Amino acid sequence: MDKILLDHGSGGKLSHLLTTEIILPFFDNTILAQLDDGAVFAIDGRRLAFSTDSYTVDPIFFPGGDIGDLAINGTVNDISMCGAVPLFLSAGLIIEEGFPMDDLKRILASMQAAAKAAGIQIVTGDTKVVPKGAVDKIFINTSGVGSLRPDIRVSSGMAHIGDRIIISGSIADHGVTILTRREGLTFDAPITSDTAPLNHMVRNMFEVSTDIHVLRDPTRGGLGTALNEIAMKSNAGIHIEEKRIPVKDAVAGLCELLGFDPLYLANEGKLIAFVPGEQSEAVLEAMKQEPFGEDACIIGEVVDEHPGKVVMTTPIGGKRIVDMLTGEQLPRIC
Amino acid sequence: MDKILLDHGSGGKLSHLLTTEIILPFFDNTILAQLDDGAVFAIDGRRLAFSTDSYTVDPIFFPGGDIGDLAINGTVNDISMCGAVPLFLSAGLIIEEGFPMDDLKRILASMQAAAKAAGIQIVTGDTKVVPKGAVDKIFINTSGVGSLRPDIRVSSGMAHIGDRIIISGSIADHGVTILTRREGLTFDAPITSDTAPLNHMVRNMFEVSTDIHVLRDPTRGGLGTALNEIAMKSNAGIHIEEKRIPVKDAVAGLCELLGFDPLYLANEGKLIAFVPGEQSEAVLEAMKQEPFGEDACIIGEVVDEHPGKVVMTTPIGGKRIVDMLTGEQLPRIC
Repeated sequence: MDKILLDHGSGGKLSHLLTTEIILPFFDNTILAQLDDGAVFAIDGRRLAFSTDSYTVDPIFFPGGDIGDLAINGTVNDISMCGAVPLFLSAGLIIEEGFPMDDLKRILASMQAAAKAAGIQIVTGDTKVVPKGAVDKIFINTSGVGSLRPDIRVSSGMAHIGDRIIISGSIADHGVTILTRREGLTFDAPITSDTAPLNHMVRNMFEVSTDIHVLRDPTRGGLGTALNEIAMKSNAGIHIEEKRIPVKDAVAGLCELLGFDPLYLANEGKLIAFVPGEQSEAVLEAMKQEPFGEDACIIGEVVDEHPGKVVMTTPIGGKRIVDMLTGEQLPRIC
Repeated sequence: MDKILLDHGSGGKLSHLLTTEIILPFFDNTILAQLDDGAVFAIDGRRLAFSTDSYTVDPIFFPGGDIGDLAINGTVNDISMCGAVPLFLSAGLIIEEGFPMDDLKRILASMQAAAKAAGIQIVTGDTKVVPKGAVDKIFINTSGVGSLRPDIRVSSGMAHIGDRIIISGSIADHGVTILTRREGLTFDAPITSDTAPLNHMVRNMFEVSTDIHVLRDPTRGGLGTALNEIAMKSNAGIHIEEKRIPVKDAVAGLCELLGFDPLYLANEGKLIAFVPGEQSEAVLEAMKQEPFGEDACIIGEVVDEHPGKVVMTTPIGGKRIVDMLTGEQLPRIC
């Protein structure tokens, strides 16, 4: 392939290839090679997590949020998925010449509120303005640093046979919201992005069990792609049951109408956790205590079959292999 | 002002106003309010520096470097300017659909080489692909984390009367390189960007003296703007001598020809240090030992006059107030 395609940014199969075959060879080191949501390292014995994400979502304002809180929550969540407590964030703004000052203030206010809700501080930043046409409105990069307890180890490569797979709530809300908004569709049913900070939930989960094996927020590429990455990295077989996966009625209806599979649509306030069977109920209960986890449920488990693959039992009892997302469902979803 | 102007990204006066009057009020905290090149904080007693920068330079390839090594060196330097040792960097790529894969590989190779030269690791990343027209070719954000010794305190607010002001070499090389390249000008004289990592030089400077008061890399806005920010934040009077400021002949000639003032053109491999008089020669000598510091020299001092202002003695003995950059000399310089 001699050109970058939109699919390279899908979060799915081609993204994975771009990362592993083109980018990773240039920067090979054991920390980056983990390919988790963030990097974990120690400085003078103190374990830290560090993560970065650029946000290019279009439209920049959408039901349930905007590019500002999305950017804060996204990096808060990536650090949380390392098992760490997010503490300090950076904000890098790239703004198009002519961008309305009021829109900028609205986005900044949204970032401020999200930072407060997550309990983190934005401590450093950078603002670039580029000529009209060099960027579409505004892109935001956030990076963040968190503190990681010595006794916590989570990684996409640590799924164990017998682990129960918990999801914190309904899937595809963010993806469907952006999709419908971009297509100019409006509905009676209130469909809103699920963008939310998950750090408080994660803290409570670790209070119940430090033996959580995998934490992951299924953003770009959706639940299907995230589970595939975990299955591959852990060389583990994943079995899920379709009827247990929570999808809101309005979201399910729209996906059917428009021909999208909710398994591959982005979530921005959900996590999946792989937890040993005997601790799964306690962790599930801890999640349900949280406002962003009240619909948490167990959707499957890690099995001693089909290593590296995700298999889903359909409502009528059939079995289907869930592959990574191939092709781009929706560019600029986050 | 109801719209973002290009001048808001100049690194000069309007950038300063955007940061202090629009952005800062939303995220007010004592760390961010320092407005240094990076943030300094402690996690469990361990002092860290954290910095972010987005690179939007146009053209992406230029004599002496490209957007890749510029992005690595820039964040390495920002962390170094906090007095810290840069250790771990993130890389966030935003790529335009259709971008040539070979160009991407060339940029990645350049990032790899720059990381190696600086002795840092790229440990986490993010890649977004946006539809054609949503970004011009490629933008790169780098953020970084460094370790800071307990006995080092540098800040733009710490200039003291009697401090000597040292610059590590000639100014305006990067700015003139981008400018001429963008205008399609070619010359016999080799004019190249000065992009370089300054962390090794800073380490050697601190081996000579831990009493360095201010470190700063005069990037966007140039030497003139950086000195003004230090003068204002320290409420100190700065005096410099024009004839002492190193400017390469070819660079000076081009600036004269094109009507640019080298004082306001960007540098990407230079630092200024404010050092107590009695230690300035030792620090200067340490800088001269380094390949990127061999032309280091003292250009002025902090005086007990005109607090908050920068005054320059011209070659013929006149005095001129050096203001911050007003207006945009050159968008997308870095």
